[in-house]
Amino acid sequence: MIIDKLYEQVESKGNSCVGLDTDISYIPKGLMSLHANFEDAIFEYNRRIIDATLDVTSCYKLQIAYYEAYGIKGLMAYKKTLEYIKSKGAVSIGDIKRGDISKTAEMYAKAHFEGDFETDFITLSPYMGMDSIEPYIPYMKEKNKGVFVLLRTSNPGAKDIQYIQTQSGDRVYDQVGEMIASMGKQVMGECGYSSIGAVVGCTHAEEGEKIRSKFSDTFFLIPGYGAQGGKGDDVKVYLRDGNGGVVNSSRGILLAYKGKEDGERRFDEYAREEVIRMNKDLRG
Amino acid sequence: MIIDKLYEQVESKGNSCVGLDTDISYIPKGLMSLHANFEDAIFEYNRRIIDATLDVTSCYKLQIAYYEAYGIKGLMAYKKTLEYIKSKGAVSIGDIKRGDISKTAEMYAKAHFEGDFETDFITLSPYMGMDSIEPYIPYMKEKNKGVFVLLRTSNPGAKDIQYIQTQSGDRVYDQVGEMIASMGKQVMGECGYSSIGAVVGCTHAEEGEKIRSKFSDTFFLIPGYGAQGGKGDDVKVYLRDGNGGVVNSSRGILLAYKGKEDGERRFDEYAREEVIRMNKDLRG
Repeated sequence: MIIDKLYEQVESKGNSCVGLDTDISYIPKGLMSLHANFEDAIFEYNRRIIDATLDVTSCYKLQIAYYEAYGIKGLMAYKKTLEYIKSKGAVSIGDIKRGDISKTAEMYAKAHFEGDFETDFITLSPYMGMDSIEPYIPYMKEKNKGVFVLLRTSNPGAKDIQYIQTQSGDRVYDQVGEMIASMGKQVMGECGYSSIGAVVGCTHAEEGEKIRSKFSDTFFLIPGYGAQGGKGDDVKVYLRDGNGGVVNSSRGILLAYKGKEDGERRFDEYAREEVIRMNKDLRG
Repeated sequence: MIIDKLYEQVESKGNSCVGLDTDISYIPKGLMSLHANFEDAIFEYNRRIIDATLDVTSCYKLQIAYYEAYGIKGLMAYKKTLEYIKSKGAVSIGDIKRGDISKTAEMYAKAHFEGDFETDFITLSPYMGMDSIEPYIPYMKEKNKGVFVLLRTSNPGAKDIQYIQTQSGDRVYDQVGEMIASMGKQVMGECGYSSIGAVVGCTHAEEGEKIRSKFSDTFFLIPGYGAQGGKGDDVKVYLRDGNGGVVNSSRGILLAYKGKEDGERRFDEYAREEVIRMNKDLRG
């Protein structure tokens, strides 16, 4: 199970997940000018960040919107980056937040679990219900794939729907979590976590302990750290013995070079430093 | 406002929306063999369906999953098809069901409201809350764009989250609808509907009248007709004076040629016949 690989990566390297949400404006001018095509510059930037962080990070998450924004060429950089991560034996997460009827979900599975955009994990949105998650399960069982389903997100608007109080006395996200956990029992890894994980932002700490203990078999993808405001102490409550979750940071890592000595040339070294600092902050 | 254009298309042509969810297996072998690249065959198939239905359908909806499934080449067919629809002055809907934090939503807006994948409307998923919808509003105001937000979908799993009973006595989808309607007031068209519409499946007829009267300013994109089981009478309750909604059919139109005389060669004529039949079924 892919979740076992991710668990082991966390054990040996730490909880950080490098978010390759690569906006063109983040790429140092010197690097940009070396490439005739911007898609090559995006890939080369990602490649250097990956090379500099391979031994200190558990996984890489690519937010596909940043690539889609540059159309076909942007998606070529997305594809190339995923292929590079795979060639290095590292774990990748395609942050695509898809969610659709089962026949469409089958097409998304084909798109993101094989072919051009193949990745180890994808993120999914649960609004359409559990039959929008099910079509990915054969890929989890047979092709070593996994998903993270949105549970409680890191943005202020999370409260609009996820926090609606239900007649049963809990919140919408509680019920989503129960459905995910129940479905996840089919694809449990040896590490004790399921290949159906959940996205749980670290910016609303108030119910963190309850969430961690209630969904004890669910591995968390935790956004919100760094640029979005979350700190190490906000995250720890979502981990268990230092594992059970990976913590994404994008701008915090990609832009670590800003204002630093020789930053534009050594952006990858500063990204590495930030990842190491982050690992310590999350475990310390 | 783009919603006024869609409203007028419905007035003059009918409620049908042609769903170009073009699976390669739908393409007649004869057409397939004429093209060296499958992406050209997909585009040519779409082009012929579009040419045959332009004067009898209100709009075209492309489910992007069917194109993503074929990777970069599939997305080139998606891009070309959208460009063709635009060149014909017709209305397009990119069925992408995105939903993410505001900075990411800005990237999705850039991806789908300008550049390679530009379309008139996109679909959005509301699970992350209203701040995941807001970034599209400037495009609605300044660039004549619109969105359809998932409200109550056509699949069985719709019940899992959308139907959760809330403490206030209504259901989750009621509250989503209220938030959409409230936000939509900023982008009202002259036709009386907002450029923020909603996706409302026609397969759960029981609350149809309530939904139509409660969200009286909201234009509906209605899936579930035909192959998914919905019939003309199931749809009518979501319309008002025959307008206020477009009804998508994909397989019902694309595969209308199956088992028909000379079907493989005349697939576009059979698609047109089905669209005309459907328009009558929805208004009759």
